Amino acid sequence: MNLKELSKLLGLSQTTISRALNGYPEVNAATRERVLKAVKETGYRPNKAAQRLATGKAGSIGLVMPTAPGHHSDVHFGEFLAGLSEAAVRHDFHLVVMPSDPDDEAGALRRLAASGNVDALVLAYMRSNDQRLAMLRSLSLPFIVHGRSRGAEEDYPFVDIDNEAAFYEATKLLLQLGHKRVALINGQEYYDFAIRRKQGMVKALAEKQLSLSPDMVSHSAMSDDCGLAAMERFLRLPERPTAVLCSSTVLALGAVRAINMAGLKLGEDISLIAHDDVLPVLRPEHFSVPLTTTRSALRAAGSRIAERLIDRTKHAEAELQQELWKAELIVRSSTGPAPA
Amino acid sequence: MNLKELSKLLGLSQTTISRALNGYPEVNAATRERVLKAVKETGYRPNKAAQRLATGKAGSIGLVMPTAPGHHSDVHFGEFLAGLSEAAVRHDFHLVVMPSDPDDEAGALRRLAASGNVDALVLAYMRSNDQRLAMLRSLSLPFIVHGRSRGAEEDYPFVDIDNEAAFYEATKLLLQLGHKRVALINGQEYYDFAIRRKQGMVKALAEKQLSLSPDMVSHSAMSDDCGLAAMERFLRLPERPTAVLCSSTVLALGAVRAINMAGLKLGEDISLIAHDDVLPVLRPEHFSVPLTTTRSALRAAGSRIAERLIDRTKHAEAELQQELWKAELIVRSSTGPAPA
Repeated sequence: MNLKELSKLLGLSQTTISRALNGYPEVNAATRERVLKAVKETGYRPNKAAQRLATGKAGSIGLVMPTAPGHHSDVHFGEFLAGLSEAAVRHDFHLVVMPSDPDDEAGALRRLAASGNVDALVLAYMRSNDQRLAMLRSLSLPFIVHGRSRGAEEDYPFVDIDNEAAFYEATKLLLQLGHKRVALINGQEYYDFAIRRKQGMVKALAEKQLSLSPDMVSHSAMSDDCGLAAMERFLRLPERPTAVLCSSTVLALGAVRAINMAGLKLGEDISLIAHDDVLPVLRPEHFSVPLTTTRSALRAAGSRIAERLIDRTKHAEAELQQELWKAELIVRSSTGPAPA
Repeated sequence: MNLKELSKLLGLSQTTISRALNGYPEVNAATRERVLKAVKETGYRPNKAAQRLATGKAGSIGLVMPTAPGHHSDVHFGEFLAGLSEAAVRHDFHLVVMPSDPDDEAGALRRLAASGNVDALVLAYMRSNDQRLAMLRSLSLPFIVHGRSRGAEEDYPFVDIDNEAAFYEATKLLLQLGHKRVALINGQEYYDFAIRRKQGMVKALAEKQLSLSPDMVSHSAMSDDCGLAAMERFLRLPERPTAVLCSSTVLALGAVRAINMAGLKLGEDISLIAHDDVLPVLRPEHFSVPLTTTRSALRAAGSRIAERLIDRTKHAEAELQQELWKAELIVRSSTGPAPA
């Protein structure tokens, strides 16, 4: 059964049928019911190309994927994409992924928007003062930001976690355990999440009249090699840290390796708290010393964003909100009292 | 500089410019050179929508992503996608990802092909006798299969690794080390790669008059939990295996955890060889006992497939080949002589 046959069967135009199926208000309720009943009985499944012609909608969400040889953020990207897909599959939407040189994300986004292939956009990998926001505001496509952008007016819809609060709470826990020299293995310094996490840490330290010295901070890509290198550097300091915060379990993987190679005991000689995006292959409870974490599932964020964007493409009046999620602080064995 | 302005500047039609940029033979060499020179001087970047109108090409590669809550193959999918992207970004192509219920991959592929949104398709997650091959042959879209399909006529272009040879060689190594009871933690039994790996193992065992008993084989999703459960079951057998092959480092992650929890020493009490797709966060050399592996990078396969498909969309005469890659057997510390 194709659209043409269904049209003949019902004595309705193909456009009317498509609009009925896509919930357009100009189709009256009785007609819509007749169409839905016929669809159910015949097993008709709308052909996307025909649907697109009739409705002007591609049924798709677009996003940019920073890509370069040796660029390692894809573990996080893959998990976020899995979340988007989980929602998309429920609504028969697809995803359009525009790969981009990490230095040309704005250009890639513009080309994606101009392609006519997407109904809505996700903006991710947010930086402070992100110039892409102004561009998106000027387009007519609905969008949701994953994260936020410090310095830019906060008048856009987003799903973010409270990164500052997460690392503020984590640092407070370490301070309560008596730690005074706490280091930070963070993401690249231009990313909004990295800036906010550092701020949360600085704020907690300041409450105890402590400060974060620059040689106790590392900014890098989120790879385990970078985590290893950062931790090795910290361990060579004349006064090495007794605790460290990591912006990802991937960084923690390398940091823990450095700690083990140095013959130190995690949770005794040195404490560690990592942010856990709930990557399926890197579960903090499965480290040989289970990791204390701040947890928020990247997959859940992806799923939520897709769900809301799809709703918005179907109901033009649906308002896109700002959502700030709280990360959970989960204490396991990698944190202990500061060594005497 | 947009296409209209460039058209005015050169005194050429927009269609001619687009065709020149896309290598269409009907544009003569002198005109093409003029266009390319102007593009370079003005920094003009073709607008995809305009390009598509002019050439009928979307500049995109489509693939289906099996998705379900709790479906864990996305680590491998993400890495494969990163490979596709690496090639796509070089040619300004994008990817169209159709999420699909794992039981409706054929339907999702059909909808993707019918959408008109893709120039070429990648077929992945191959099963034996895969019915999707017949469908793809009937479409006019170029495609490449990642993997192969036992039982179906092998008349399609593919990029695969020699899974049978990989696990044959791995098993031979274990036999040379004196192991006689070798178990297998494999992918789902309907996947072509899983069938071939098992065959390679059976072949090597048969050469020593050994057979693979059904209670020494596990088929499951490629998650670490499944690897853990399988290994725990093997360790409870009256005669437990002295060696095990794992179809992924993700499965090995769980298997190694089970081995550690049982108080056994990897590489001494029990040997393990895993297939390594070169997932950036699960590097076999970073396990506490470095893993012996059969290695072939999933990212390289993705990149190669995208490169060839893009070439094919640009040059209709380009023939798509069949490529069978050899996995490398890399010996590390997780393999040792069979315990006496």
